Amino acid sequence: MASYLITGASRGLGLELARQLASLPVSEVSKVFATARGGSPGLEELAEKSSGRVVVVKLDVTDERSIKQAAVEVEANLDGKGLDVLINNAGIMQYSPNGVNTMDNLTESFTSNVLGVHWVTRAFIPLLQKGTLKKVANISTTVGSIALARSWHLMPAPAYKITKAALNSLTVQYALDYEKEGFAFFALAPGWLRTDLGGENADLSVEQGAKASLEKIFGAGTEQNGQFLKVLVKGWNQYDGINSPW
Amino acid sequence: MASYLITGASRGLGLELARQLASLPVSEVSKVFATARGGSPGLEELAEKSSGRVVVVKLDVTDERSIKQAAVEVEANLDGKGLDVLINNAGIMQYSPNGVNTMDNLTESFTSNVLGVHWVTRAFIPLLQKGTLKKVANISTTVGSIALARSWHLMPAPAYKITKAALNSLTVQYALDYEKEGFAFFALAPGWLRTDLGGENADLSVEQGAKASLEKIFGAGTEQNGQFLKVLVKGWNQYDGINSPW
Ligand SMILES: NC(=O)c1ccc[n+]([C@@H]2O[C@H](COP(=O)([O-])OP(=O)(O)OC[C@H]3O[C@@H](n4cnc5c(N)ncnc54)[C@H](OP(=O)(O)O)[C@@H]3O)[C@@H](O)[C@H]2O)c1
Ligand SMILES: NC(=O)c1ccc[n+]([C@@H]2O[C@H](COP(=O)([O-])OP(=O)(O)OC[C@H]3O[C@@H](n4cnc5c(N)ncnc54)[C@H](OP(=O)(O)O)[C@@H]3O)[C@@H](O)[C@H]2O)c1
Repeated sequence: MASYLITGASRGLGLELARQLASLPVSEVSKVFATARGGSPGLEELAEKSSGRVVVVKLDVTDERSIKQAAVEVEANLDGKGLDVLINNAGIMQYSPNGVNTMDNLTESFTSNVLGVHWVTRAFIPLLQKGTLKKVANISTTVGSIALARSWHLMPAPAYKITKAALNSLTVQYALDYEKEGFAFFALAPGWLRTDLGGENADLSVEQGAKASLEKIFGAGTEQNGQFLKVLVKGWNQYDGINSPW
Repeated sequence: MASYLITGASRGLGLELARQLASLPVSEVSKVFATARGGSPGLEELAEKSSGRVVVVKLDVTDERSIKQAAVEVEANLDGKGLDVLINNAGIMQYSPNGVNTMDNLTESFTSNVLGVHWVTRAFIPLLQKGTLKKVANISTTVGSIALARSWHLMPAPAYKITKAALNSLTVQYALDYEKEGFAFFALAPGWLRTDLGGENADLSVEQGAKASLEKIFGAGTEQNGQFLKVLVKGWNQYDGINSPW
């Protein structure tokens, strides 16, 4: 009977997370607030078939007013109950194919990938405090690990790497501040997935990535607060379920 | 006979780095470009007494036009020679005493501490490529280490921590891109210093911090490229000279 809110649910991992959550029994997942900044036929269809369990909410993570408005809507829909799990999934990957010194999209990436998560999180904290699970999963990536930077050097997306490292730090600041209230804030690397962002050569289908991500989210408790989780997918050495270094 | 450029040399660590560099023989330090966004009596005095060795240049790290203008000035002053060492020292520490969820200065800190370093670095790369030492020291802090976050939790400056983590990631992106040209880009933690930023209860005097920082900068070579250096100060366990985790 847990309620979930997902950002960036118009497509990719966010939409698939909503779909898989909605396929679980009502006894496990009571409501999915699937938020998106624009229209999404896939999401509309999912919501229509969900008998009210999937609620589509307009939310642009780069617009704090839109986030506050979404929080008001969600609160009204929850009928006095709290929100149990927040999944900060929305994100953008921007390239600088000619090297870090040509990077001109750092602020834009920062606004979506870091500031957006901060704004969404603080807007929903009051509802999460009333919830029973108090989990916040920030969808990150091992590409943002500073310790692993060398292995990702050929991927020409410095703004993505830098802002995901900043997101990891933000995650830990929240984890430490809300630890005493029993929250579990964690960064989660979902694996390289075949989405618009991941491209068609990625390792895993979006279904595999969403399933493995939900397993980590379901399993996470206060012990995982402040950690950098990575999915476990059988047959893949790189998805061994072991925490990533920062 | 090396030339240095320092940002944020109006006061604190930056001014003291300029002072100590200017006190070394000309055979070691030929020129110090001490940059500042505004006037500084201490810096003016240092420059006046330096017989032309300390050159004051106007540079605001949050204004890319001012940075490009400074690069033109420095180039003219170098008479065809390159710049040897860049020290990205300017930085701000902003507080959120009521917790990370009240943080409203993240973008401002990001602009000064991350974007500013990016802009300065790329503006001076052409001069550094013509230089002989090719060193770039980004003044960071162990407070920005995500791995050490728990030990700094009581310090209510989340924007500082998050943006210094992002600076560390930026540093490594540059390190990897310029490695093949023989550059050494590194993050350097100078210790907790008695400056306006560090406060009067800090561990070390600014003289000690600048001296220990310069020792690390002088000693760094391509082997230190992409590393997170920490100063060595005798008698202080926490300043053991051993690299910090990210
Ligand atoms: N795919 C991978 O291999 C991979 C690997 C590691 C981590 N991740 C992370 O997983 C998350 C989802 O990635 P994905 O692969 O599903 O990417 P995607 O297919 O490009 O989808 C991105 C989603 O984020 C939304 N979004 C972007 N900016 C937004 C904004 N300002 N407000 C609201 N929503 C916004 C998009 O909405 P619109 O449709 O409106 O653009 C879309 O729903 C990201 O955080 C990404 O960094 C992905
Ligand atoms: N003190 C410590 O304990 C400590 C510890 C670890 C790391 N650090 C790092 O060391 C560096 C220097 O710190 P500090 O203790 O010397 O700080 P400080 O005493 O506050 O001095 C900061 C310096 O940065 C300059 N600055 C700030 N914004 C600028 C901008 N937009 N353009 C140009 N210059 C700008 C200031 O210039 P104005 O005079 O114009 O404001 C000043 O010269 C910082 O990066 C800091 O994070 C300090």
